[in-house]
Amino acid sequence: MTTPNYLSDRTHAVEWSGIRIMFALAEQVPGVVNLGIGQPDFDTPAFIRDAAKQALDDGYTRYPPAKGFADLRRAIAKKVKAENGIDADPDSEVYVAVGAMQVIFNTCLHLLNPGDEVIVMDPGYDYYSQIRLFGGVPVPVATHESNRFKVDPADIRAAITDKTKLMIINTPSNPTGAIFDEAILRSIADMAIAHDIWVLSDEPYEHILFDGHRHISIGSFDGMAERTISAFTLSKSYAMTGWRVGYAVAPKAIIDEMEKLMEHMVSGVTAVAQRAALAAISAPQDCVREMVATYDKRRHLVHEGLNAIDGVTCLNPESTFYAFPNISSTGSTSWDFAKYLVKEHRVAVVPGSIFGRAGEGYVRLSFAASMEQLKEGIARIGRGVAALRS
Amino acid sequence: MTTPNYLSDRTHAVEWSGIRIMFALAEQVPGVVNLGIGQPDFDTPAFIRDAAKQALDDGYTRYPPAKGFADLRRAIAKKVKAENGIDADPDSEVYVAVGAMQVIFNTCLHLLNPGDEVIVMDPGYDYYSQIRLFGGVPVPVATHESNRFKVDPADIRAAITDKTKLMIINTPSNPTGAIFDEAILRSIADMAIAHDIWVLSDEPYEHILFDGHRHISIGSFDGMAERTISAFTLSKSYAMTGWRVGYAVAPKAIIDEMEKLMEHMVSGVTAVAQRAALAAISAPQDCVREMVATYDKRRHLVHEGLNAIDGVTCLNPESTFYAFPNISSTGSTSWDFAKYLVKEHRVAVVPGSIFGRAGEGYVRLSFAASMEQLKEGIARIGRGVAALRS
Repeated sequence: MTTPNYLSDRTHAVEWSGIRIMFALAEQVPGVVNLGIGQPDFDTPAFIRDAAKQALDDGYTRYPPAKGFADLRRAIAKKVKAENGIDADPDSEVYVAVGAMQVIFNTCLHLLNPGDEVIVMDPGYDYYSQIRLFGGVPVPVATHESNRFKVDPADIRAAITDKTKLMIINTPSNPTGAIFDEAILRSIADMAIAHDIWVLSDEPYEHILFDGHRHISIGSFDGMAERTISAFTLSKSYAMTGWRVGYAVAPKAIIDEMEKLMEHMVSGVTAVAQRAALAAISAPQDCVREMVATYDKRRHLVHEGLNAIDGVTCLNPESTFYAFPNISSTGSTSWDFAKYLVKEHRVAVVPGSIFGRAGEGYVRLSFAASMEQLKEGIARIGRGVAALRS
Repeated sequence: MTTPNYLSDRTHAVEWSGIRIMFALAEQVPGVVNLGIGQPDFDTPAFIRDAAKQALDDGYTRYPPAKGFADLRRAIAKKVKAENGIDADPDSEVYVAVGAMQVIFNTCLHLLNPGDEVIVMDPGYDYYSQIRLFGGVPVPVATHESNRFKVDPADIRAAITDKTKLMIINTPSNPTGAIFDEAILRSIADMAIAHDIWVLSDEPYEHILFDGHRHISIGSFDGMAERTISAFTLSKSYAMTGWRVGYAVAPKAIIDEMEKLMEHMVSGVTAVAQRAALAAISAPQDCVREMVATYDKRRHLVHEGLNAIDGVTCLNPESTFYAFPNISSTGSTSWDFAKYLVKEHRVAVVPGSIFGRAGEGYVRLSFAASMEQLKEGIARIGRGVAALRS
């Protein structure tokens, strides 16, 4: 057997997601309580599924337009105007995507030349593979528990160079649950404008807010429309992770490129999923409020339960369905601790270090799980920590 | 307004599809007969839609595995064994994709380094954007009407250089309807093995065959499993273009890369669409036979109707739902002829030159349209040709 002259160099820039590696471990453990999963534990609400069924009978089984159905784009424009304060022309500034993930992938593809630097938060969602795949250089900016993991704009300023092409902002933040307030976002916007930098604002958790916190979209600020790609998804708000529908709001020049590429990449977003998305966005948003109220109850349980463990401290998350406890007193690295927990105590969490170096000493727990699972999972974590510290 | 330092260089390698440009023209013409569309005019069969509805009630609304549901991969492995003669391990050699399009995109991403040459058929499906996006250099090999558009392997041999990394084979062929027989495919396989070249075998029309023609998958030949990425789709066989489900069969090293990238690209294939695909593949294939029988009737109408036009000749397509008439006697280029037809005679066809230089002098007509539309469309083409030649 000859070996065909092999894979492209760029392929090697892509890494297995750390979350997936943890899942592979968890799958081997019978009776595991899996608090690693980053998705709602609810089914998609019935009225959305019903709309999808109706759409199948109405003939939505053929190629959709590459940038999405016109009525869905109009509904999106209405939503981002009302909820995010962003004015977008549905015909030229809105793109229906295969989840917010495709918006992230395409943004890196469309913007990054080799050597371009991309500022990301640390700990923060792992955008490294997408950045590196297209030759970009991730530049992590650390955020700190002492500041509730809200970025200090001065730290961003210190990271900006002549090569900075893009900043990726993720508020509400996965994994920390931090919300960047208006003052922080204004500072970031000022720097983006002053230094001529693009901003990718990744906002999957826009609706999952607690204690009266508000979500602000940086794309709504003066001077930002022309340099912001705002990425949204139906996945978290409506328990629609499996439908693969999100959307981008961005300048026409970017949307045009996304539309053009779509025809050569995956052709379009599954038609029936788009019809479900239209139903979800257009309806009264009670289902979102109900799910968030449920997350809020679980949040209290998790926050109190974790802080009751000797040697663990945990901020009360302002948003998302993640808690990000500090486990550094155990003396273990995040990876060692997570592997130990799943193997010895049958509870799966995600090591904080997969979210960046500054995530070392933390783990991420999802509270998109039942109260019973959460209680049992925290009990197991408690026993695991006690055994380590004894 | 400052202009943000702008798009990546690679973005400019992607071009609007020529088909889309024709559609934009056609949309402006009231009462147009559109024979340009490359999709079945049937709805997805009811039993497949019913399976999707059931899946929504069964909770298939959450993240699917990155490489597809295990039961669907097993059904795919069974299908490619029985129908394509390809042995594939469902766990490591099958990947569920967002249409065959994603397989094409990913193959170029995973294999091509800048300067790598890719052999494509001319006229042939337009893979140029995907190849160029990743720095590849398309090397067209002409096929000829005199040979029923079947490639002469000697022409491929003449095109191979030290830089040839990949050959893209598309049989049954869009736009020509040609089928590459076993002897041709064996010659191609021998060259791929001798020169250590990858083969992407794009087989969306595998089931749409006429006059007893057989489809052969090059991936089934000895020595080819290790160097072939076979791309299949549900779109054409089951009238499922809008569901966006296809699949790749390839060596484990390639499937691993596709799976790894999926998490960072679009996360997975819409769960409900995968369940519909499983129903389609697992069922008796009567629906496919019925649709093909209908295409066959239309094929005769189109073949006879076009040849009855003075100045037009058309081969009888062996497969697909496309006719590829020679219109060179009109003295127009393909583009001028297609634009003239849509503007002056309200019938839309696709210029042959968008499928490569050797497609100049031809147009592509789809007969995935009703008999009434086809009759009227051909009558309009006839009037258009007569007016040009008078």
